[in-house]
Amino acid sequence: MLDDQTVAGHLQELRRGTVVVACLAVLVTPGYGYGLLETLDRLGFTVDANTLYPLLRRLEKQGLLQSEWNTDESRPRKFYRTSDDGRELLRVLVSDWRALTASLDSLDEGLPS
Amino acid sequence: MLDDQTVAGHLQELRRGTVVVACLAVLVTPGYGYGLLETLDRLGFTVDANTLYPLLRRLEKQGLLQSEWNTDESRPRKFYRTSDDGRELLRVLVSDWRALTASLDSLDEGLPS
Repeated sequence: MLDDQTVAGHLQELRRGTVVVACLAVLVTPGYGYGLLETLDRLGFTVDANTLYPLLRRLEKQGLLQSEWNTDESRPRKFYRTSDDGRELLRVLVSDWRALTASLDSLDEGLPS
Repeated sequence: MLDDQTVAGHLQELRRGTVVVACLAVLVTPGYGYGLLETLDRLGFTVDANTLYPLLRRLEKQGLLQSEWNTDESRPRKFYRTSDDGRELLRVLVSDWRALTASLDSLDEGLPS
């Protein structure tokens, strides 16, 4: 009997790296953290705020995202955009993703239907 | 300037979960660890022995793989096969990966060419 925790752990492991790809791709169009969260959710990249915000800070620290404060409103809000380095990494990751998908497809015969 | 270590870290994160999928898929046909390593490499799932062998033990402990010793030869060798639970998890993971890939495709317009 396959237990839920095992499934959840492996799903999380499978999804982890894909969230970075999704963030870099979505933020080619600059946006706020909250809007990004909604977009990712709509696209099926499930991630909660407690995971996403530290990830954005990590990506910024690595120079993959740039951020600016929008102070036009009473409450300043930080918005992010994918940097040139981030775009370069995005190309590498997407290319790798497609190669991994092709490899999985080639395993298809071994896969139970 | 995008540094190699950043790229390597994100590639590793993206690939990590896919290695589990590949192991479960390949071992639907029972095999030895060493043969699996060669097959994964040929398919483009890069993983080294120091990562693969602990992973196989972890998957066995989770009931996703079953192992048996082949004692026909002078040196006993352990071979693995994907269990029924492992096949069930494999279906879940493959389906999730395909959904994530479809989401990635839907992001395509935002992706730099």
